Amino acid sequence: MATTETLTAERILEATEEVLRRYGPAKATVVDVARALGVSHGSVYRHFRTKAALREAVTERWLRRTIDALRPYADAPGPADERLTGWLTALFALKREKAGGDPELMATFQVLIGENSAVVDRHEDHLVEQIAGILAAGHREGVFTVPEADLPATARAVFHATDRFHNPAHSAEWSAPDSGAAFAAVVTLVQRALKA
Amino acid sequence: MATTETLTAERILEATEEVLRRYGPAKATVVDVARALGVSHGSVYRHFRTKAALREAVTERWLRRTIDALRPYADAPGPADERLTGWLTALFALKREKAGGDPELMATFQVLIGENSAVVDRHEDHLVEQIAGILAAGHREGVFTVPEADLPATARAVFHATDRFHNPAHSAEWSAPDSGAAFAAVVTLVQRALKA
Repeated sequence: MATTETLTAERILEATEEVLRRYGPAKATVVDVARALGVSHGSVYRHFRTKAALREAVTERWLRRTIDALRPYADAPGPADERLTGWLTALFALKREKAGGDPELMATFQVLIGENSAVVDRHEDHLVEQIAGILAAGHREGVFTVPEADLPATARAVFHATDRFHNPAHSAEWSAPDSGAAFAAVVTLVQRALKA
Repeated sequence: MATTETLTAERILEATEEVLRRYGPAKATVVDVARALGVSHGSVYRHFRTKAALREAVTERWLRRTIDALRPYADAPGPADERLTGWLTALFALKREKAGGDPELMATFQVLIGENSAVVDRHEDHLVEQIAGILAAGHREGVFTVPEADLPATARAVFHATDRFHNPAHSAEWSAPDSGAAFAAVVTLVQRALKA
């Protein structure tokens, strides 16, 4: 699909995701990406200096979609406890959708995620920051009683305590009939802790 | 190793675990087990009617070791909140030890666990029962304020909220330098919830 559009990093990343989806992470090459864009592989390398850099960038872009999709829940109006439940529910729904909707792409990104642990760490930090923002608002509103100094550690603990409902290592369990009830029980536990 | 000892189910299971460790779950056969015991494979089949039944029993035995090792923590003297922290800490330590001490046996049992989901469900039920026992004691002592009717669901929520620190799907994260602090933060969160 040769084209006269300007070759941007974003267009390369879009094409890379499509190539990864089609050939799988083991076989996809930079030449495949260049061919899909109708450009030379040199043109791709001008934006991403190595294949590893390209794979890292496409992983980051994929994870950023979750962050962007969750931001409205983090910044929603209303009391912080309801926002937290809304945010956790949205995260679980997004992850379930990703896992169930396109299992091949999910499997592809699981490989990429394994290769790019620093990207994943940054992604987790972003998610924990969104939780921390909600907890800080709840602290100001008097909804949450956790001491201010404990908020960063508590935000990470909330993220870890709900791991079963967002970490792809658990995706096989998400289709179990009782997974919704199990999720609700953990959210109740977390809310009790924050209001203690 | 021919022997004149009586052939018990327990001796067969011991030998099976050793054979699985040596040959791996894909290659180990009932004939290998019989050979290790110096008996005919017919003798093994008199105790376990199929290879699948034998694999299920050895999986159950392996998981029961965790239950047995945790019972003293579940039944320990002292206030329920301290017993709960002790129990969760012991579970995390046991799982870390299993994962780190003999990674090949761990990998073998991960395969068997994948084959025997009913055994794993029962195992999780046993662990949740131990937590429920501690929560019920805490309720009687007035240490935990969770309503009695909510105790079973809460026990399961505590189990799920601490998943990151006992589910083998997370074993790669257990050697991270901050895993001890992350565990302590989740336990603090759980304790706050139970005392709210």
